[in-house]
Amino acid sequence: MVMSEIDESVRAELTRLRESIDNIDAAVVHMLAERFKCTQQVGVLKARHDLPPADPAREARQIARLRELAESAKLDPAFAEKLLNFIIAEVIRHHETIADGTTKDTTTDATKSATTTDATKDVTAKEATTTDGAAG
Amino acid sequence: MVMSEIDESVRAELTRLRESIDNIDAAVVHMLAERFKCTQQVGVLKARHDLPPADPAREARQIARLRELAESAKLDPAFAEKLLNFIIAEVIRHHETIADGTTKDTTTDATKSATTTDATKDVTAKEATTTDGAAG
Repeated sequence: MVMSEIDESVRAELTRLRESIDNIDAAVVHMLAERFKCTQQVGVLKARHDLPPADPAREARQIARLRELAESAKLDPAFAEKLLNFIIAEVIRHHETIADGTTKDTTTDATKSATTTDATKDVTAKEATTTDGAAG
Repeated sequence: MVMSEIDESVRAELTRLRESIDNIDAAVVHMLAERFKCTQQVGVLKARHDLPPADPAREARQIARLRELAESAKLDPAFAEKLLNFIIAEVIRHHETIADGTTKDTTTDATKSATTTDATKDVTAKEATTTDGAAG
């Protein structure tokens, strides 16, 4: 875009909106960084205490709640649900990478330990740190 | 999960983590509701003032910035980039739905007007309310 061709007030308005978008994006990135810290802790907790990996009732409640929140915020509820699934998929991917021992991310040693020490039930342990941690 | 089988302190810790996850999810949903309001305004602004739809330099700056923010927050930078693309794809989908006149969402009349009144350059107008609004 050639800014000199744009009316000054329009340019100012565009800048104002973009600054808000950038602030929001920064907030979301930091919120999700915190969320991943929580789900990693959930994964560790469940793996350590032999808790079942999946909790369909919890997931159903999360989806229903997010759809309601979205509706009240005038956000497409279907998008909110897709977003949750997108995030869960990412957590699963991270945890699978951890389980494969090929991670390059900022995983804590505690999480690595939880996903690798229980050699006697490899599949269950893997599930415990994927689906569980993801849904939280 | 059968809660009675779980040690009380573990259950309390799981509840604590889940409450944090739920708080974060609510924050993210509300942040994104605000973001979509901004991108819709950007779409309207650009359509009304014949601004070019795509702004690759802006998008490149957004991606680079989000990756940096993610890194400092110990979030996978690749995930931050994927998230931005996921959100942009959703904005595009919304705007295409608006352009098709089949929307059931909470689109403002101003946005609808901006996507439908310029019949002489349909493709350009559609782009102006998709790529633009999405990247913001």
